[in-house]
Amino acid sequence: MRANVLRFPLPNPGDVGALAASITAGEIDPRQIVAVIGKTPGNGLVNDYTRGYLTQTLSLLIAEHTGETPEAVRARIPFVFSGGVEGVLSPHFTVFTVDARAEVASGGKALAIGVAFTPRLAPGDIGRQRQIDLTAEAVRLAMERAEIDDPADVHFVQIKGPAFSTDAIAAAQGALLSDNAGRLMALGRAASAFGVAKAVGEVPEGAAVEANVLSDFSVYSGIASCSGGVEVDCNEVIVVGMSAAWSGPLAIARATMDDAIDIAGVHRALAGLGMAAAPQLPEAGAKRLRAGFIKCEASRSGRVRGAAHTMLTDGDIDQQRHIRGAVGGLVAGVLGDTALFVSGGAEHQGPDGGGIVTLIAERAR
Amino acid sequence: MRANVLRFPLPNPGDVGALAASITAGEIDPRQIVAVIGKTPGNGLVNDYTRGYLTQTLSLLIAEHTGETPEAVRARIPFVFSGGVEGVLSPHFTVFTVDARAEVASGGKALAIGVAFTPRLAPGDIGRQRQIDLTAEAVRLAMERAEIDDPADVHFVQIKGPAFSTDAIAAAQGALLSDNAGRLMALGRAASAFGVAKAVGEVPEGAAVEANVLSDFSVYSGIASCSGGVEVDCNEVIVVGMSAAWSGPLAIARATMDDAIDIAGVHRALAGLGMAAAPQLPEAGAKRLRAGFIKCEASRSGRVRGAAHTMLTDGDIDQQRHIRGAVGGLVAGVLGDTALFVSGGAEHQGPDGGGIVTLIAERAR
Amino acid sequence: MRANVLRFPLPNPGDVGALAASITAGEIDPRQIVAVIGKTPGNGLVNDYTRGYLTQTLSLLIAEHTGETPEAVRARIPFVFSGGVEGVLSPHFTVFTVDARAEVASGGKALAIGVAFTPRLAPGDIGRQRQIDLTAEAVRLAMERAEIDDPADVHFVQIKGPAFSTDAIAAAQGALLSDNAGRLMALGRAASAFGVAKAVGEVPEGAAVEANVLSDFSVYSGIASCSGGVEVDCNEVIVVGMSAAWSGPLAIARATMDDAIDIAGVHRALAGLGMAAAPQLPEAGAKRLRAGFIKCEASRSGRVRGAAHTMLTDGDIDQQRHIRGAVGGLVAGVLGDTALFVSGGAEHQGPDGGGIVTLIAERAR
Amino acid sequence: MRANVLRFPLPNPGDVGALAASITAGEIDPRQIVAVIGKTPGNGLVNDYTRGYLTQTLSLLIAEHTGETPEAVRARIPFVFSGGVEGVLSPHFTVFTVDARAEVASGGKALAIGVAFTPRLAPGDIGRQRQIDLTAEAVRLAMERAEIDDPADVHFVQIKGPAFSTDAIAAAQGALLSDNAGRLMALGRAASAFGVAKAVGEVPEGAAVEANVLSDFSVYSGIASCSGGVEVDCNEVIVVGMSAAWSGPLAIARATMDDAIDIAGVHRALAGLGMAAAPQLPEAGAKRLRAGFIKCEASRSGRVRGAAHTMLTDGDIDQQRHIRGAVGGLVAGVLGDTALFVSGGAEHQGPDGGGIVTLIAERAR
Repeated sequence: MRANVLRFPLPNPGDVGALAASITAGEIDPRQIVAVIGKTPGNGLVNDYTRGYLTQTLSLLIAEHTGETPEAVRARIPFVFSGGVEGVLSPHFTVFTVDARAEVASGGKALAIGVAFTPRLAPGDIGRQRQIDLTAEAVRLAMERAEIDDPADVHFVQIKGPAFSTDAIAAAQGALLSDNAGRLMALGRAASAFGVAKAVGEVPEGAAVEANVLSDFSVYSGIASCSGGVEVDCNEVIVVGMSAAWSGPLAIARATMDDAIDIAGVHRALAGLGMAAAPQLPEAGAKRLRAGFIKCEASRSGRVRGAAHTMLTDGDIDQQRHIRGAVGGLVAGVLGDTALFVSGGAEHQGPDGGGIVTLIAERAR
Repeated sequence: MRANVLRFPLPNPGDVGALAASITAGEIDPRQIVAVIGKTPGNGLVNDYTRGYLTQTLSLLIAEHTGETPEAVRARIPFVFSGGVEGVLSPHFTVFTVDARAEVASGGKALAIGVAFTPRLAPGDIGRQRQIDLTAEAVRLAMERAEIDDPADVHFVQIKGPAFSTDAIAAAQGALLSDNAGRLMALGRAASAFGVAKAVGEVPEGAAVEANVLSDFSVYSGIASCSGGVEVDCNEVIVVGMSAAWSGPLAIARATMDDAIDIAGVHRALAGLGMAAAPQLPEAGAKRLRAGFIKCEASRSGRVRGAAHTMLTDGDIDQQRHIRGAVGGLVAGVLGDTALFVSGGAEHQGPDGGGIVTLIAERAR
Repeated sequence: MRANVLRFPLPNPGDVGALAASITAGEIDPRQIVAVIGKTPGNGLVNDYTRGYLTQTLSLLIAEHTGETPEAVRARIPFVFSGGVEGVLSPHFTVFTVDARAEVASGGKALAIGVAFTPRLAPGDIGRQRQIDLTAEAVRLAMERAEIDDPADVHFVQIKGPAFSTDAIAAAQGALLSDNAGRLMALGRAASAFGVAKAVGEVPEGAAVEANVLSDFSVYSGIASCSGGVEVDCNEVIVVGMSAAWSGPLAIARATMDDAIDIAGVHRALAGLGMAAAPQLPEAGAKRLRAGFIKCEASRSGRVRGAAHTMLTDGDIDQQRHIRGAVGGLVAGVLGDTALFVSGGAEHQGPDGGGIVTLIAERAR
Repeated sequence: MRANVLRFPLPNPGDVGALAASITAGEIDPRQIVAVIGKTPGNGLVNDYTRGYLTQTLSLLIAEHTGETPEAVRARIPFVFSGGVEGVLSPHFTVFTVDARAEVASGGKALAIGVAFTPRLAPGDIGRQRQIDLTAEAVRLAMERAEIDDPADVHFVQIKGPAFSTDAIAAAQGALLSDNAGRLMALGRAASAFGVAKAVGEVPEGAAVEANVLSDFSVYSGIASCSGGVEVDCNEVIVVGMSAAWSGPLAIARATMDDAIDIAGVHRALAGLGMAAAPQLPEAGAKRLRAGFIKCEASRSGRVRGAAHTMLTDGDIDQQRHIRGAVGGLVAGVLGDTALFVSGGAEHQGPDGGGIVTLIAERAR
């Protein structure tokens, strides 16, 4: 098997012309598309409809070319879109393809991808042990499909889980961990991260439990990237790692950021790919870069290295929009690239107040 | 003369307790305060009242300790506050003091400061040749007061000019370059930057003219930092540079950023002070840092290195808030410091779509 | 011919299940749909993608039921969506159908509908005489199709015209009346309103000219309702009025609001339908109400009856969002109904600083 | 005793020139000022500094004229400012004065005012029984000072209680009902409303208890209006009602609104003063109006009369800003007046999803 990873610009969520052109030109076989991860120009919060819009647009395009129904496309391909391209960030989407006929090269491990879906999750499941456990099962299934045996070879697990409108929450009330739509979204991200940590054994036995959700922030995954949206109704799971069962020139590496200005974390992720920025990734390196996935959050303490930040009490701009803009600017500066998937809401995804940087690139020859 | 530069945290615009403690402890003589530049937790736009609030709070504090009236304090000391601490940025204010009795050291040039005020500017003056010329005169007067002879020794000119409410604009209508409050603010920043460029000869004779204001962006100052606010009614000018007439351990350096992700610009500014970040300024260097002033703006082309940004068409977050957050995150990552004066609206202040980084630090011994 | 007007709730722009159910139940023949006007949950500004999303969703639904392609549906049916359901307003869409086989009742005039499209409008046409004249022609064509002879029988002309992204504006630069996306949108609404006024002779010969666009606000239409969006590329025109060529129980009436708190305007529109609110439309009347279309704007003077408002200088909430919320609350209170099409940006649509209220209801029997 | 109530426009929170002129003209004796309630142009949320700014400005002005220190002025006079003049609302402040020398007229009851302060409230007290009970005691003390014996004569109790920054919350953590600054503000408003209800016996014995705070919304006060802000550290209480111990032409009346579009509630409040709107208060009546205080909130069900609203899940505009704009527009339309105190966060203040309208006016002669 051989994986490919291609980024496309997104002028608006109804315009996927760049991918259409690539399909028409024969560069991408739409039947080989196994996942799409993208950054849309919404606010990234509960009322962000750009995610659903792009999902609809892409499933129509792919269905048109494969002969599937759009529903079948959506059932087969996880579309994980995160809203919010604050500051210098650029709307885009990254297409993951798998060529199952490709022979395995003899050169060791190559980029490997697997996807899986949990059963449907109701509002009452969000943030609970059930979400943790079902997610862990889905991660293990996706690893199996990706033929990744060693959990240490999993470098990135992207999850998109359900969020709920006020109406859906009101209809379900009584059984929920929170009746606040935004809080429920955070609980879902947190439980999903615990599911990842449990699946790959990142945390001690018994730590990835409901009681620790949004409570013990020393328990975290270093590879989970979790988002939520009203446009999905289960946890969609994309596992990316390295496996000897795969061929191709791509590799993946990641590093945690200890806090929101830990620029060294970005350099550590680059080093994992044999790349270096001094202070910016030179053009040759930038051309090898296929995608960057960053999770980050406004520190709950209200401080970054002792100095107060205002993100948690700003009534005009949500904390997620603040932190995406800031960390996006920092990482874009190091990479010389603004088409990055920078996502807020990093509860239990990387160290508290910090985050995770994951990069996919062509190996140097 | 000997200048000092001290930063204080600002829990809220009514709380200048950190400075009060410093005065009480005898660390600062309030009669020696010649300028204050700060970053307040507002939106930085026309309806940002945190600037006026802090001005009132500080003038009361200083008046209480010097025996002046608050009005006399405000007439003597430029208070230049810029709202907007998006992302990781931290509200703070930087106090500039001058000890006129200090002897001149024999070791060459040291940090020098001078201030001046233009006559009152009416709404009809904003963006016009009159604002350019009066600003240039004030810059020259401030240079003279700072005993800086060589324009090449001026590294930073901070200006705060008047902004106008809808009411004030309506009352003045007819003579104005724009009846849009935000646009008028931009015109004022642009003309002020031209005034600086003209005073120090940064641009060719005849380039710093009204016809080029918000029109020819190849004409810019590399040292001007201009803000506006309804709380002032003239251009308040603070000139900072190096002069052999001054003593003390402080130095200033600056560099332009070619675009919003030109991280090398930050490194160039550090190099001007004999400092280096690899990738972050180490703790010893960070302790020497006294202040950082950054101007930046969302590129008018709608693109950063070819990739689209969304800052200019976001109806929910103003472009200035976007760019401050992004560039603030980048510079904070390099400096390991979040109490930075990052200000949007860099029209003719640095290259188009880019900006300026200015740093003040203790020289290494 | 016989027109029908039906409102449907919109849980999100991807969910038009209520209309689907109505089609499936045989209550609506999708081939009879001639126009859809709706209110989506976006910000209503340039970067509002909820309009395009709903357009895509509805054209797919209708195409599925009529056997047309989605493109053919969009070419045939004007989809006029305005973002922004601030305050109590409820997302919804109103479907206009025409049964061409229906016999003409003998009881006089009934609700009549006609649609037309201008040729494609380029960025350089926006706000210009060409947009005015092409719009006037399209209005006359739609009147003809609606068999409305007397201009006094036209009570509502809804127009959706093109808006442009920063990219599109940058590509077109030089020929444009403004390079500011929001300003260009306003110019387009204004010129469209002039086109309506010209077509029905509401203003003196020679008044509906480019020179008066966004300049002479004494020139206005009392029946135009104009919006813009990046999802259309010409002016889509929907004319609604009364005509003896039509049958059915529906009628339309309208009144201008002199300012944003002119509650009497709402009562005048009700009176035109033989209805009264005391102080709220009683339930029986509310059931007869089929749709309400309101245009409004923040007064350019910065004042409402002498008291200052803050809408024009708020850096956090756009003026259109402010005024929609306020006028929406007022009209909803009188009508006892929140599923109203309340749209900002009423340049030359109703008196300056005021607006227009248009109501469609079943006649009392 | 004789109370007076005067409204002044507020061009910005640093400009109280209208009151200054009134004091200078001898129209107001600053020593007679007992309370000020105002609406400032901030966002009305945790990071709204316009309230503190106006408090500072007013205490300076009054101190200057009375010879008190500003601190003494703040300890004597409750300054209750609520941010947020969304839509048509106009920034203003209402000054309450008491002339203790005035003789009692024989004509029955007149407007009566009393103020009181609770002891300091710590973060851990917010939302708790202690806040409820201390507030109830302060209300009873203020009633006593106002010489109102019958609880039925209390028509309005305005309370401003403490809010806390992220820093203050972090420092206090462990003992708090919520570590979310906005949620803690809501708990404080709710407990304060319970204190009022308990003091005047509006609810059954045992209903105004901590267990019901933000839980049983059938328990509410019909006269409480509660706000919070970081600028106060105890509950400041202003009781306004009718008492035979007072003289003067002023009266107060109030009514509840059952939901956010219950326009009849506004008419009921007018009727309590012998006034009527048809549909707007005529000019003669409007001139008699001295102040309007409105509490309102976005219904927790996500619906108004069955139709969905979007206020609770809007990531760009806080629900309080939405509802103030909508209800402000409605009430302004009925009263023909936009200088109204419209305040969100009506937890347990009026029926769930509704609110309270309170009016002060000169009696008709």
